[in-house]
Amino acid sequence: MFAFVNSIFEEKEFLTKIENSYNIFKGERPPFRQRSSCPKKGKNLKGENIMENIKIALCQLNFTVGDILGNTEKIIKAIEYGEKEKCNFICFPELAITGYPPEDLLLKEKFIEDNLKSLEKIKENVKNSVVIVGFVNRANNKIYNSAGVIDKGEIIGIYNKKILPNYGVFDEKRYFEEGKEDGFFEINGIKFGVTICEDIWHKGGPYKKQIEKGAKYIFVLNASPYHYKKIKERKKIIKEICLKYDVFLFYTNLVGGQDELVFDGQSLVVNNKGEIIKKGKLFEEEILIFSLKDKPIEIKEINECEEIYKGLVCGLRDYVYKNNFKKVVVGLSGGIDSALTATIAVDALGKENVIGVFMPSRFSSIQSYLDAKKLAENLGIEFKVISIEKIFNSYLETLKEIFKDRPFDITEENIQARIRGNILMALSNKFGYLVLTTGNKSEMSVGYATLYGDMAGGFAVIKDLYKTMVYKIAKWRNSISSVIPENIFIKEPTAELRENQRDTDTLPPYEILDQILKEYIENDKSCEEIIDMGFDREIVKKIIKMVDKNEYKRRQAPPGIKITPKAFGKDRRMPITNKYLKWNI
Amino acid sequence: MFAFVNSIFEEKEFLTKIENSYNIFKGERPPFRQRSSCPKKGKNLKGENIMENIKIALCQLNFTVGDILGNTEKIIKAIEYGEKEKCNFICFPELAITGYPPEDLLLKEKFIEDNLKSLEKIKENVKNSVVIVGFVNRANNKIYNSAGVIDKGEIIGIYNKKILPNYGVFDEKRYFEEGKEDGFFEINGIKFGVTICEDIWHKGGPYKKQIEKGAKYIFVLNASPYHYKKIKERKKIIKEICLKYDVFLFYTNLVGGQDELVFDGQSLVVNNKGEIIKKGKLFEEEILIFSLKDKPIEIKEINECEEIYKGLVCGLRDYVYKNNFKKVVVGLSGGIDSALTATIAVDALGKENVIGVFMPSRFSSIQSYLDAKKLAENLGIEFKVISIEKIFNSYLETLKEIFKDRPFDITEENIQARIRGNILMALSNKFGYLVLTTGNKSEMSVGYATLYGDMAGGFAVIKDLYKTMVYKIAKWRNSISSVIPENIFIKEPTAELRENQRDTDTLPPYEILDQILKEYIENDKSCEEIIDMGFDREIVKKIIKMVDKNEYKRRQAPPGIKITPKAFGKDRRMPITNKYLKWNI
Repeated sequence: MFAFVNSIFEEKEFLTKIENSYNIFKGERPPFRQRSSCPKKGKNLKGENIMENIKIALCQLNFTVGDILGNTEKIIKAIEYGEKEKCNFICFPELAITGYPPEDLLLKEKFIEDNLKSLEKIKENVKNSVVIVGFVNRANNKIYNSAGVIDKGEIIGIYNKKILPNYGVFDEKRYFEEGKEDGFFEINGIKFGVTICEDIWHKGGPYKKQIEKGAKYIFVLNASPYHYKKIKERKKIIKEICLKYDVFLFYTNLVGGQDELVFDGQSLVVNNKGEIIKKGKLFEEEILIFSLKDKPIEIKEINECEEIYKGLVCGLRDYVYKNNFKKVVVGLSGGIDSALTATIAVDALGKENVIGVFMPSRFSSIQSYLDAKKLAENLGIEFKVISIEKIFNSYLETLKEIFKDRPFDITEENIQARIRGNILMALSNKFGYLVLTTGNKSEMSVGYATLYGDMAGGFAVIKDLYKTMVYKIAKWRNSISSVIPENIFIKEPTAELRENQRDTDTLPPYEILDQILKEYIENDKSCEEIIDMGFDREIVKKIIKMVDKNEYKRRQAPPGIKITPKAFGKDRRMPITNKYLKWNI
Repeated sequence: MFAFVNSIFEEKEFLTKIENSYNIFKGERPPFRQRSSCPKKGKNLKGENIMENIKIALCQLNFTVGDILGNTEKIIKAIEYGEKEKCNFICFPELAITGYPPEDLLLKEKFIEDNLKSLEKIKENVKNSVVIVGFVNRANNKIYNSAGVIDKGEIIGIYNKKILPNYGVFDEKRYFEEGKEDGFFEINGIKFGVTICEDIWHKGGPYKKQIEKGAKYIFVLNASPYHYKKIKERKKIIKEICLKYDVFLFYTNLVGGQDELVFDGQSLVVNNKGEIIKKGKLFEEEILIFSLKDKPIEIKEINECEEIYKGLVCGLRDYVYKNNFKKVVVGLSGGIDSALTATIAVDALGKENVIGVFMPSRFSSIQSYLDAKKLAENLGIEFKVISIEKIFNSYLETLKEIFKDRPFDITEENIQARIRGNILMALSNKFGYLVLTTGNKSEMSVGYATLYGDMAGGFAVIKDLYKTMVYKIAKWRNSISSVIPENIFIKEPTAELRENQRDTDTLPPYEILDQILKEYIENDKSCEEIIDMGFDREIVKKIIKMVDKNEYKRRQAPPGIKITPKAFGKDRRMPITNKYLKWNI
């Protein structure tokens, strides 16, 4: 039953790279890429032309929501490190002290106080540098999303975020008051501005006034959640500012996972010619150290699949570790969704921490078993087989009298899925594993999943990947090392909950389905608009109805990692009770 | 197995009263309390002194989110009715056309357009009155939470809500732009102001400017969600405005349930002496017709338990009907929670639409069976007994090899609860019943419930009632007719998932627990502050830990009706990944 096979892909560079991303201070490896071109000293700061000689550190670190103690320690270590490296400025991400987003922890007075105490503690540890750190400021019974500017042990200024995002996953107006101050600072003749995240996404944002006052350097503290291709949008907006206003911009981003969100890092340093002179790693902690004299660098485009894959690995790893789990269990069906989920889990946690369980019924094919087993062997994970037949029979027997002669229908399908859910949760309860669910975005959209069945679990890794993306990402992963058996890619998707079932019995082909879903969910297009794009009227109507009708299921789904511009969860807040449909289609 | 006993409480006045609240236009009864004192005509409107002779209708109606078609029909019917009754002003609640809160439906362009079309249609149906109706306005690519003022077929003005709530359950800044206009109107010499809900909760709100311009009458359109004792707060704020500024205020509130929210109606007409001259019914539709000459009325205090109970009945009924269910199924354990839930269901839906299922295991006592059976008989509902023993044994057998010699623990407890969840969901799937869960707020808080087990279901009726409140409300309900067997009140609470289990094995007595929970959850007090109130340090620490640790369960819980000032759900948005605990206690 137990199969420990060494997986062949462990040595691959991309894996070792991300392996240590959780906390750079724990690892042996140096936490940053040392630049020999950095000047040794940055003293004698008297004017703008001096600025070129100074060293700056952007601390792209992984903070944990609520972990004020741990975050503070990490910040202090980074300051010590930066000062040892003779950095003159050390910058942290948005709300570094509290983690992002702290949500309703912000309504707790003591939480705000603890965060303020932390700032005091950090302050005391700033010896020879200017530190810019995100925290929650409080004044006149209001709280602010703020940046503290600490110069050699003294808080010399605070910038309160002016533009508060309150759309998509963001709820900042729920908590914070808008700032009024300019965020312009001058230290030893160096004039700079401090802004926070959303502030730079609006034309004529706070940076404009800072620049008018003479700022040549804009520090931006960010907790910018990942979705695919977002880096392009960021680069564009930053380059525009730098070119238009002839300034340098230092963009420090958070890294790591927090419930539904994952932050990609990829901090950026852009010079006044709009050229990137430094870029942070993708989904990894890093302290970027640079001087303004540094030459522009070539940025190699990252494959979209690689980017998404690393995001999933990072998001899962952080959810598991930050919630004090060590091992996860995945129900392996022999299909592509569970195969990809298990693979991500192995890359995130190591093969010794992933358990695969195959739970056959009368409807399971031998091929499914073989595919699941092969996958587990390839991944080198523990593989258990637990038949649900006995239990399924006991349900049928127990319910026989009440169901009388009613035919086999979705009820019996769901019973099977829920038995599997119960078994995985039993393993979770007995052994302390976190159960990963394996549903994709296409299924979540149309409700092609069983609530409390295959939807039962703590974390839904690929919840925001459409089925067509699941295949694409899995294919890319296999190009690194071929862990997912080829047959899993070839065979037709099936839930195997009744005889000869195929996903396409109920759904249109995924190539069609996914396009319609994207238009309806992400672009908020109406039924008519989607039909006008050339899709079949009846199919579009059917799909939209399914999406709307299944809101109640999604409301009870576990959180998963946001990958697309609009994910389910707090990114899309639809009513369950919703009779718009009548008019809508 | 089937027991249809006529319940003795059906004729009770409070029940017949609320029975017809869902849609007054469907019932035979007149939809409002006719006032003989109303003047027959209200013409010749030339000045303020004329105002006293006119008739006003406040339409406290139950709208459905997204049901633009249905809501429009209802609005037009009410206008016809009001005009037939010779009303000069007819006022509707906030966002009457779309229902409240429409949430992310507001991001759909077509939804906004459909709502605008509806306003046009309503306009055409206004013949001889001034109609004030809530809708979503659009201008310059922004949307507003607005009131349209229609005078005899023409939209003569629009007021856009100025103060947008963005706390608690509210997300209005996610969607709406703040209004700029005054909201002052003059028609035939009658000067009045129009404001929307939150607008009057802030000192010096928009009404102040309206009054400065000469308004003597303030119309307020509301969708003010219920929590217990809220009516007192409303009365206070309204009376203050009327007295301070010498104005009349017409407060039209929405009524009915929407997912987690229930709106209580209780519209108010307060004169310039701060006296109430008309009050809408509690949790019922009503068109309030009055003239300003009407004398102040005596408001009799409503028993808090009655108020809460009616809220639960209304919230449940609307969730069931608006989501196109007819029947519900409840797992009856013989305990107080399921007893109260089933009773509310019968009062909301009728005994013929409630099915009670007792699912005994080896740990169930005979007394539990007797109590559940007696309850079902008293309520006159169908009562099924489905033993889970066979199924439970099949799980134990199947998992024996994997669990080896590990002792019976919470795993086996949860398996039982999940079998019951699976059975209820199977009944739901086979017969189209909605499953009601029976967990209370105390359990939801500390996680004393099984995810996918007793937490499995579509609606959690008493989710926001602490256990001590459950007893209180049940006792009050029994004072109307004694449906809940006395023994259920007397016996010690137990989950019966292991031998001789009692809730107090794990939890402090509910009298203590509930006080601590209230301080921590509703008042956001810290551990130290609660200890300082005189509670045992170790108990407080333990409870807070349990609350924080179980956020993941609540995230996957079904919605339930908000009754307290802070409910779980969108009212309290806590991160799952949250390491504040370390510092917090």
